[in-house]
Amino acid sequence: MTTEFQRPNIFAMTGYTPGEQSADPATIKLNTNENPYPPSPQVFDALQQFDAAHLRRYPNPTASDFRLAAAKLHGVAPEQIIATRGGDELLRLILTTFVDPGDSVAVAEPSYSLYPVLTAIQGGQLFDLGLTSDWRLAPDFVDRANKARCKVAFIVNPHAPSGALMDEASLRTIAEAFNGLILIDEAYVDFVSNAGHDLTQFAVKADNVVLLRTLSKGYGLAGLRFGYGIGHARLIEPMLTKTRDSYNLDAISQSLAVAAIQDQGYIEETRRQVIEARLELQVALGALGFEVAPSHANFVLATVPRSGPSALSIYQALKSKQILVRYFDQDRLRDKLRITVGTPEEQHQLIKALREILQRD
Amino acid sequence: MTTEFQRPNIFAMTGYTPGEQSADPATIKLNTNENPYPPSPQVFDALQQFDAAHLRRYPNPTASDFRLAAAKLHGVAPEQIIATRGGDELLRLILTTFVDPGDSVAVAEPSYSLYPVLTAIQGGQLFDLGLTSDWRLAPDFVDRANKARCKVAFIVNPHAPSGALMDEASLRTIAEAFNGLILIDEAYVDFVSNAGHDLTQFAVKADNVVLLRTLSKGYGLAGLRFGYGIGHARLIEPMLTKTRDSYNLDAISQSLAVAAIQDQGYIEETRRQVIEARLELQVALGALGFEVAPSHANFVLATVPRSGPSALSIYQALKSKQILVRYFDQDRLRDKLRITVGTPEEQHQLIKALREILQRD
Repeated sequence: MTTEFQRPNIFAMTGYTPGEQSADPATIKLNTNENPYPPSPQVFDALQQFDAAHLRRYPNPTASDFRLAAAKLHGVAPEQIIATRGGDELLRLILTTFVDPGDSVAVAEPSYSLYPVLTAIQGGQLFDLGLTSDWRLAPDFVDRANKARCKVAFIVNPHAPSGALMDEASLRTIAEAFNGLILIDEAYVDFVSNAGHDLTQFAVKADNVVLLRTLSKGYGLAGLRFGYGIGHARLIEPMLTKTRDSYNLDAISQSLAVAAIQDQGYIEETRRQVIEARLELQVALGALGFEVAPSHANFVLATVPRSGPSALSIYQALKSKQILVRYFDQDRLRDKLRITVGTPEEQHQLIKALREILQRD
Repeated sequence: MTTEFQRPNIFAMTGYTPGEQSADPATIKLNTNENPYPPSPQVFDALQQFDAAHLRRYPNPTASDFRLAAAKLHGVAPEQIIATRGGDELLRLILTTFVDPGDSVAVAEPSYSLYPVLTAIQGGQLFDLGLTSDWRLAPDFVDRANKARCKVAFIVNPHAPSGALMDEASLRTIAEAFNGLILIDEAYVDFVSNAGHDLTQFAVKADNVVLLRTLSKGYGLAGLRFGYGIGHARLIEPMLTKTRDSYNLDAISQSLAVAAIQDQGYIEETRRQVIEARLELQVALGALGFEVAPSHANFVLATVPRSGPSALSIYQALKSKQILVRYFDQDRLRDKLRITVGTPEEQHQLIKALREILQRD
């Protein structure tokens, strides 16, 4: 029966697998890149002050207040911002708006596993252009993407799962040469070491670049489902006025997102703590024989010591000790673990457990 | 530039126009079918008890608690329920999952103006089969829909904007004869006069029917953006595991939606009040010379008196008195106004204003 009704591309595809969650509060979760710190106190206040009686009415359809606040923060115009239900909705809207079924979409694997899923839903053709050994786009990325007539390229920067960062100059060169639209997924940009890294002015001036931002990581609001896109108004406009679900964001999340984005002092403070803890994690893993790629995100990608147990065994051994990290059964990643930066205490527990597993007492 | 990047169907289409909102709290809003009453006290409690610290973590990806609560309420299995960001997300998922670009989609205009918009986004062909003079599906609806090879039919029941109700037997006959999938949009079902009207058992047993429910109307939660679908698990499954955005519902709305759906006593009470007020509104409009179609929704469709000013003039005159109702510049509706059932006080103000406009003092 399902075959009869489902579209062939939907029937053939496999859905996205969400990260492992645990109902046990004692579990140390270092597997889904959540922020180790809670959201801003301003978010707690906004939640307490929200009057449920307002829920009777439809919310603001375009999240105007949030878009104003985000525009002010980035020094751009509200017309250059679209607010979305998590960054994921923006990824979908990019495909819905700009990619016809059959069109090619460029990615560079390994990257966010949702890109292929969303491309399959849209009936697009995935065109994987690979990465260099240090997790950067291959030098002929644009040539090959243009030859394949890719309409959209998804580039995650900082890169996941490695944490590598491409700078503005490289991205500008790519954008200028690429015939399609580039979605730069900046889910982890709030953890970049270089505080001067800021692509927003480049993005709104280019005519084929949209930046993806999310409150899930840097703002400690994965549970709120709130993200946004920044780009030229002519790229934002069809998503804002046509392809977006008409009331995509509820009234409570709009109110909390405004509170969160306006408290940049708090974000700076947690950012500083995460960057500090990331360095500590890199050093501690290095001391245990892991090879750790430099990271600009709130996770590190660690190659397990050659002489010891496999990455899969270590992942399983950690899990039996109620510590979740991420193992990818995927090319180039099978000897690695992606470990989210945690609180100092969580990291202490992790290192202690790894020491036991690797028998490095 | 936009023409270059946008898909041709997106470039050609017009987006959905959300209902008029007013920033002035003194405005009487009877134009977007919001509930005149606030959500259940349990929703207020759930909001107060929600700890913002939980927002750090990703929410439950499939809204399991809500689906369990909804399944219990309807006497179906959780696998027969999908929770969505408003009913609108379910409409989109039906198209994404079951309608290929170029496929036909059956509607019966006038109905919810979002159906054509979503069909255009998906690149589907809209096939309007019209309605009888008393707002029912034409007798040859299925024959024509089958001949046009429609993959999906959107049927709103109770009908909007008339409030007419089709019974289970008629819908069963249609479902059995139709070769495609039927989405029965029950956005207004919580206001049906006949308390015994319940299509859920029919829907989960049929192999081509999905019911749409929303908390926006009956539960007074338009601002929360929460709805759900009920149908055969084999129809629900691909939407739940493949085409739905991976975390489509935030943690707060999941918690509040569970609280709302579990307080059926409160819903019964507001339903009773709305049905009573609807009758009063029908009588009062009738006394002023309007012809009012029988309604099973929280609105009435009123044909303006022949001798007086036009529907458009009355709409404008009401607006100048800070009362919003809905005027449709559309075939069969230009001599009518759709008026949301309000509180007794709001309706009193409306009738007073109409009396002045029609000079029936």
